[in-house]
Amino acid sequence: MPDSSPGARPTLEAVAVRAGVSRATVSRVVNGGAGVREPLAERVRRAVEELGYVPNHAARTLVTRRNGAVAVIIAEPEFRIFSDPFFEQQVRGISRELTAHDTQLVLLWVEGPGDYERIARYLGGGHVDGALAFSVHDDDELPSVVRRVQVPTVFGGRPGWPGAAGDAGVPYVDADNRGGAREAVRYLLGLGRERIAHLAGPSDQTSATDRLAGYRDVLLDADPGLVAQGDFTEESGARAMAELLERRPGLDAVFAGNDLMASGALRVLRERGLRVPQDVAVVGFDDMASVAETTDPPLTTVRQDIEGMGRLMVRLLMRALNQDGAPGAAPASVITPTELVLRASA
Amino acid sequence: MPDSSPGARPTLEAVAVRAGVSRATVSRVVNGGAGVREPLAERVRRAVEELGYVPNHAARTLVTRRNGAVAVIIAEPEFRIFSDPFFEQQVRGISRELTAHDTQLVLLWVEGPGDYERIARYLGGGHVDGALAFSVHDDDELPSVVRRVQVPTVFGGRPGWPGAAGDAGVPYVDADNRGGAREAVRYLLGLGRERIAHLAGPSDQTSATDRLAGYRDVLLDADPGLVAQGDFTEESGARAMAELLERRPGLDAVFAGNDLMASGALRVLRERGLRVPQDVAVVGFDDMASVAETTDPPLTTVRQDIEGMGRLMVRLLMRALNQDGAPGAAPASVITPTELVLRASA
Repeated sequence: MPDSSPGARPTLEAVAVRAGVSRATVSRVVNGGAGVREPLAERVRRAVEELGYVPNHAARTLVTRRNGAVAVIIAEPEFRIFSDPFFEQQVRGISRELTAHDTQLVLLWVEGPGDYERIARYLGGGHVDGALAFSVHDDDELPSVVRRVQVPTVFGGRPGWPGAAGDAGVPYVDADNRGGAREAVRYLLGLGRERIAHLAGPSDQTSATDRLAGYRDVLLDADPGLVAQGDFTEESGARAMAELLERRPGLDAVFAGNDLMASGALRVLRERGLRVPQDVAVVGFDDMASVAETTDPPLTTVRQDIEGMGRLMVRLLMRALNQDGAPGAAPASVITPTELVLRASA
Repeated sequence: MPDSSPGARPTLEAVAVRAGVSRATVSRVVNGGAGVREPLAERVRRAVEELGYVPNHAARTLVTRRNGAVAVIIAEPEFRIFSDPFFEQQVRGISRELTAHDTQLVLLWVEGPGDYERIARYLGGGHVDGALAFSVHDDDELPSVVRRVQVPTVFGGRPGWPGAAGDAGVPYVDADNRGGAREAVRYLLGLGRERIAHLAGPSDQTSATDRLAGYRDVLLDADPGLVAQGDFTEESGARAMAELLERRPGLDAVFAGNDLMASGALRVLRERGLRVPQDVAVVGFDDMASVAETTDPPLTTVRQDIEGMGRLMVRLLMRALNQDGAPGAAPASVITPTELVLRASA
């Protein structure tokens, strides 16, 4: 066996000879072991260990037909992606985890529905092994695009598109938005606040509707006039806050759908001469350091582990790719816990 | 000719039959006409028009071996890309122009030198037709990577890596950094300022060194103590400004290497109780709306058309791709003019 001689790097052939199996069997075991009976697989693993065999990347690509690249698709226009620190944090977690898997991240975004034909062509062209999709709106074409081109995809956020509830095969990672919202509202109630308003995020995203549902879980008989609509941007938070103060000037607390909207609300409250938290207590959602720690006053908020969720998405996708074709390949979805972080605003 | 019957979409074959040429010739003409003699090309074009032939995208891909995708590679870590509005603006121009060319943009970035092996594998894997590279530092491996994997690439910014000066085949788009800097400094001189300092950008990027050279063109005998080093971030601008005030408290003007650094400098000047422009006049570089228009006071700055430069990069790349193999294929580089925009800071 010349391949195991000192200095030479042991080859796949050497492993096959030592284990007494075919090269194809070694390949399969090295790449996850799908379809290889256990005693055989064990023999191969022992041979790999004895020879100190290290799989060659190019060879692995040939066998697995992998590109070593994953697309991250954010269903928002470019200006939103670059201005909302939420995406930066999520992409950071993904980027690090993909690097740990020696996989190239390619970022795509969606300026409008007209982009989907081109994106489908790219994904269908076999240039990536899988995709991670974010900020998908309920009427988005993205879920049907990835289904059509058959690219394994993990979603960030609970799918809300029509039929998604029955679509058990769609893996996703989400925070416990509803539970986190309940905790925020209960905390405000515990402070003795009696007219708690909610600045809701976009009604076509489950992260927003789940937080609204959590607010309503606690305040079953809440005055509907205490809920105002925004779209997760700071500007929309300011607008919704102004609207609420017009409609319900006696409000004494605000639970905002995210930190950026809370930041817009704080600005409007300050402009109106209302003191936070004395006159109006404010709670956000996300706990993005660049927002929650820099507002005046700093923001009490519901923390979700945005970076960690990005990492989890990568792990779910990698598991799906490795189990390709094996029974039970569909990875389970994951809901991560939230945590109330207390600062000066409430 | 059944293919030109009403209702049926005319095919490449139908065009070939009508023009009396081979399918290959039709393909070549439809895809830019390289290598087809004029009378023949004209006959094909007439047949295309008469039959109302629309090239099929998939077929075109087969013929041209195009993927319909271009990589945008920013040689900066992810946190810089998402926090510096310069990249957002440049990517915006590129994104729009690529969409106009029905080409998918995939964004890649570089956390560190260790990423280049993976990026080379991705680019060399034939997943994109070309690349646009930005923010390349002088010791960056990126130029050698794209040369090695032979991916047509247009650079944003004048190449400064060793040997780049002789590397005439490297197409790039840049602003007239040196000329713009000269105009800024001459303007400050014209205001009667006598001790004009410069906050320099990173010394391993030509955009920074060219601006410093422009400053020195005008102030041949400038006191070297009036130049402080930064790295194009706001924080570094504040730090460099503080350093300058320590060293040369009598300075009466500052030309900053970019708007972000100017913004950091304004903050420090305000903290020290120095009035802008009465005590110290400040001029920036870039004219990024989100920075220059929102500083206090608003910033006089050298405008470069960042979005337009992004568009130009795409056009140069598309020209290179279409002329592939044809003589004179290497596109020329482009230097775009700058313009001094007057606001309250100087």
